[in-house]
Order: sequence, then structure tokens, then C-alpha cells
Amino acid sequence: MSASAKPCVFCAIAAGELSAGVVARTAETVAFLDQRPVFPGHVLVVPRAHVADLDAADDRLLSGLVVEARRVGRAVQRAVGSDGTLVLVNNKVSQSVPHLHVHVVPRRRGDGLRGFLWPRHRYATDGERDAVAARIAAALRDGGDGVAPVEN
Amino acid sequence: MSASAKPCVFCAIAAGELSAGVVARTAETVAFLDQRPVFPGHVLVVPRAHVADLDAADDRLLSGLVVEARRVGRAVQRAVGSDGTLVLVNNKVSQSVPHLHVHVVPRRRGDGLRGFLWPRHRYATDGERDAVAARIAAALRDGGDGVAPVEN
Repeated sequence: MSASAKPCVFCAIAAGELSAGVVARTAETVAFLDQRPVFPGHVLVVPRAHVADLDAADDRLLSGLVVEARRVGRAVQRAVGSDGTLVLVNNKVSQSVPHLHVHVVPRRRGDGLRGFLWPRHRYATDGERDAVAARIAAALRDGGDGVAPVEN
Repeated sequence: MSASAKPCVFCAIAAGELSAGVVARTAETVAFLDQRPVFPGHVLVVPRAHVADLDAADDRLLSGLVVEARRVGRAVQRAVGSDGTLVLVNNKVSQSVPHLHVHVVPRRRGDGLRGFLWPRHRYATDGERDAVAARIAAALRDGGDGVAPVEN
């Protein structure tokens, strides 16, 4: 249950209080069918613990969640006969439920799901590109979270 | 360098042989700007070691890669002033470079990137839903990769 007044639907599924097409449970995670799949077999993998979003997860929880999402994704590919998967996290924006969840979507070649990373653009100039890279590198130096990067 | 005759572009970037907007290097990973960003600040995080795709990565490499992608994503949000991120892996299908890479895309509310997980559908019946869940659960039991799930 989330700390807010509104009950968290993914906490309810994790607790077994709400019906869902659960495909796997581990000590730390639950995997179940998305109720509105992009394609049949579209699974959500969530931590049992209520964690609001990707940025709020600690490293250990995040690692375990992604390893489980990959394990489930392999099973999804065998189960529905797909060629691969799309594995994604909407971090805050486009995140419909404020409980961290990893989407595992079966993909087939020619399945028509081509719009999800479009349109793509190019940086107008190398200078513009380098300026953006420099801002991110500076934010990493200033961030103080995790090991300092080795600059090249 | 990949084992194939064709040089791997991400191995070349990791080795510093090819120019890219590198934002961070760690002992295991390199993060650099996607040359054709969805939005400026779109970063790819790759393992230095050549690993073809998500399914081919071992758990330790995968964990470190995702933790680094999250660290870089926090910096991207600060650097470009976004509200969140989209973090995704195209596993085999729609994977343009056969070297595992995590996309970290800055997102803003109302940025127009709404088509990437659409259209969504519902299962026609609960029975259809449950049949799909059962197939995935069976594939997990038969898979032999990782810890056996606890069924509910």
C-alpha cells in the first residue's frame, strides 16, 4: 500500500488482493499481464515493495527487478513465439501507476510497432551535440550519486 | 570489436576509436549521445564488453548497466530540465546495432511522445487473458534460467 490515501493497485496485486494474470512471483517481485497490452503476452514486472518510480529505487532493488524482467521476457518469447522483446520503464512521465513497473512487450519483426521512438532528429551541428554532452557530463560530476565517471 | 567481420560501432566508441558525444565512462560502461535523438539529451548506455543483446547479458553485467543508465538518466533530467525519462531496451527486434544498449530519453509532460506504446488493446475475455498467463508461467517453469517462481 502506498503512503497516500489512495490504495495502490500494484501493491494490491502484489498482495494477492486484486485479480491479475500473474505469471511469476519471487520474494521481491511480481509479474502479471498488463490489462491493456500492446500485444498479447505484454507483462509488467513490479517490486513487491512500494517504490514510486525508477529514480526512487535503490540499486539492489533495481538490479533484481531488471534481472527478473529479463527472465520473464525470455519466457514470454517462448510462450507467444515472438522474435524479441521491448523492455521499458516510463519514469514519471507517461507513468500511469505511481509504483515502479517494467514493461516487457513481445515483439515480432514486421509487427507494426515502429512509432514508439519516432520521429528522430539529428543535432543541427556537432557544436550543439557537444554542448548537450557537456551539460550531462557536468550534471554527472555535480550529482553525487554513485561512482564518479572517468572522463575521456 | 564483435566476433563478426564487420566492426561493431559501439565497440569502436567504447574503445575511443570513434567520435561520439561521450557523457560518462565507468570501468564497465560507456554512455554517449544517440546521434539521432528523439529529444536532445537522448543517451545510449552500453557495456564496454561486446554483448549482442539483452538476452545474452549475464546478470551482473545487466545489473551494472541498468544502475548506470539510471544514474545517467538522473543527470540527463538535471542537464536538460526534463520531468522524467523513458528508459528502454530493444531486444533483437528494432535493435539497429547488435551490441546491447539502453536508451535513456528525456521526457517532458506534453512532449508529444505518446505513440510509442499504442495502440493498446484489451483481452477479449478473462479466459483468453488467463490462457496467455498460463503459457508464460509454464514457459518460466520449463525455462531453467534463474530461480523458479513461486506460483500464487
